[in-house]
Amino acid sequence: MHSPHTAKLRPAPPLEVDHWFNTPQALSWESLRGKVVALHAFQMLCPGCVAHGLPQATRMYEVFAKDPLAVVGLHTVFEHHDVMQPRAALAAFIHEYRLRFPIGIDRPDPSGGPVPLTMQALGLRGTPSLIVLDKRGRIRLHQFGRSDDLKVGALVGELLAEPDEDESADCDDQGCRLPEGISAGARP
Amino acid sequence: MHSPHTAKLRPAPPLEVDHWFNTPQALSWESLRGKVVALHAFQMLCPGCVAHGLPQATRMYEVFAKDPLAVVGLHTVFEHHDVMQPRAALAAFIHEYRLRFPIGIDRPDPSGGPVPLTMQALGLRGTPSLIVLDKRGRIRLHQFGRSDDLKVGALVGELLAEPDEDESADCDDQGCRLPEGISAGARP
Amino acid sequence: MHSPHTAKLRPAPPLEVDHWFNTPQALSWESLRGKVVALHAFQMLCPGCVAHGLPQATRMYEVFAKDPLAVVGLHTVFEHHDVMQPRAALAAFIHEYRLRFPIGIDRPDPSGGPVPLTMQALGLRGTPSLIVLDKRGRIRLHQFGRSDDLKVGALVGELLAEPDEDESADCDDQGCRLPEGISAGARP
Amino acid sequence: MHSPHTAKLRPAPPLEVDHWFNTPQALSWESLRGKVVALHAFQMLCPGCVAHGLPQATRMYEVFAKDPLAVVGLHTVFEHHDVMQPRAALAAFIHEYRLRFPIGIDRPDPSGGPVPLTMQALGLRGTPSLIVLDKRGRIRLHQFGRSDDLKVGALVGELLAEPDEDESADCDDQGCRLPEGISAGARP
Repeated sequence: MHSPHTAKLRPAPPLEVDHWFNTPQALSWESLRGKVVALHAFQMLCPGCVAHGLPQATRMYEVFAKDPLAVVGLHTVFEHHDVMQPRAALAAFIHEYRLRFPIGIDRPDPSGGPVPLTMQALGLRGTPSLIVLDKRGRIRLHQFGRSDDLKVGALVGELLAEPDEDESADCDDQGCRLPEGISAGARP
Repeated sequence: MHSPHTAKLRPAPPLEVDHWFNTPQALSWESLRGKVVALHAFQMLCPGCVAHGLPQATRMYEVFAKDPLAVVGLHTVFEHHDVMQPRAALAAFIHEYRLRFPIGIDRPDPSGGPVPLTMQALGLRGTPSLIVLDKRGRIRLHQFGRSDDLKVGALVGELLAEPDEDESADCDDQGCRLPEGISAGARP
Repeated sequence: MHSPHTAKLRPAPPLEVDHWFNTPQALSWESLRGKVVALHAFQMLCPGCVAHGLPQATRMYEVFAKDPLAVVGLHTVFEHHDVMQPRAALAAFIHEYRLRFPIGIDRPDPSGGPVPLTMQALGLRGTPSLIVLDKRGRIRLHQFGRSDDLKVGALVGELLAEPDEDESADCDDQGCRLPEGISAGARP
Repeated sequence: MHSPHTAKLRPAPPLEVDHWFNTPQALSWESLRGKVVALHAFQMLCPGCVAHGLPQATRMYEVFAKDPLAVVGLHTVFEHHDVMQPRAALAAFIHEYRLRFPIGIDRPDPSGGPVPLTMQALGLRGTPSLIVLDKRGRIRLHQFGRSDDLKVGALVGELLAEPDEDESADCDDQGCRLPEGISAGARP
């Protein structure tokens, strides 16, 4: 498949979210460990998000409902800041488009820049963007624009088939590492 | 075709619009006399408007560019009033969706009711709605929901083929009337 | 609209058909006088016909069911002659695709050329092609490739609104002619 | 994922094919060992095959071009036998629809029954059907009708991620077996 060599993979930077919809508590990558994660970054007024990105997110939410896969939306506004009134307008948008999966509002840059914090940290090029994380929280797909269902499905199938973190005990083709928090013995 | 008997047709009630986009001056039915008019009523957060109504409006604007047909959008908000901030958000929406035809904001009911004035006067059932007026400003189609391109096209073709008001001199199957403002002779 | 000036219009050349489906008796332009006619030329193995031309023919057949409009299919094979076994294969095709409108098999050129006779006479450039005739049997649209529903609908609406032959008594913008078979000459 | 427990999986029954297109030599499951196989069963005159099954086969052929995945078509006629003239008509169909992957003609039942041999052996319910085999030639999906791209993609991704036969040395959750041809017996 298309997966890059896993030895070089780095964990995703933290989610910086101001408000969550469709979830009783805030999400973090840590809370999603053990699941494959499909993060769909979008804007309400982005035609490609409405036509392609969000319908694909909804299809993934339905098709993989019984699998350890989490679909997460991220409203990441970098245009028309002043007119979006994010929270209330997004609540109406989510209601009208019947989006059921958790959706967070990307936190504005406190220094006043136009690009919100998670978008900055992930290095997104625009919306829609699809970021896929494996069960260990590492970025395995980082795509801007329309994503093909067969390709995305194949990556998801591959990642779902990977062993859970517990099973793998941090083994990869470089060797096996001790789990975090476990020391290998006394040091002088 | 589907046209009702024209003798009973009534003129459309006045457009009540607070602000216009994509036109240097306010539109009225009077200013559009002599043209067939396709009025597309929509809301930004209405999925059926974004998926069907507005793309059809854009197709009509392009296909009938050389014909005496005016495509007019009407943003007629009856839901989520508080979150829409109409003017600036609609400007961004129009920009992102590349809508080129004139679009007006339906005037809110001054008595505070949820349904704006033009929507009330036209008796619209919701959005998207398509209202088609003939060259004399009379309502010839009043449809809620998705409209079929072949049907809409056929009505437009029929109405475009009707004589202009001047040519017809107010003739219909009831007889011919003098044009307004012309007297038929001396009165005592 | 798109209609050419009607004074120069010529009648369509005769239909040359070997076998008809979905009709108890052979069709001719004469038998369709008084109706607008949409002639859809196609081949079974033509992808554009299956994807666009025939679905549009079916939509027209349904949308204009109550109007004086006839949808007619013409299977006009100019490729893969030897493998098509026209009549039986076409019967199966019509059955599987649930085509309900009359369909004729264009008559092969008796001189052995690859282009069948009606296709030759109409000067078709390929399939799918859409030919639209007015109520008087004159060609008003002659289009190769995909046809837009709004455009086709508008032409149909215009032609349906034209007076019937009887009403018009052969009048056009050049004047009125005597019906065929009636002489204006001196009588004894 | 959706994969059944692999211990009970059985190998696919042999392909019974009369003639192959788009391949210099006949295919068999044996010749495809080590590859995931997507077998698309279709008929030329089956609307669902033309609209959904074959376009999906083409997308799979393109999307997984660099992966060890083989897309195979099987023309499996159980209707309109007499009118299909399989070989020449199918050649024309393959040419017109620009199908590039190997396609075989399912062998007619020599006893004269309507269902050809591979279709019988696979127990297909109709067309389109999609059969997916893993790298070891075992059936992992057996679906009649339209298949969802995300679901199919996920299965393919999972199967591509499975170890090759050589690597696995016939190990499954029941234990490990010696490769074929290798005896465990005493040696002099």
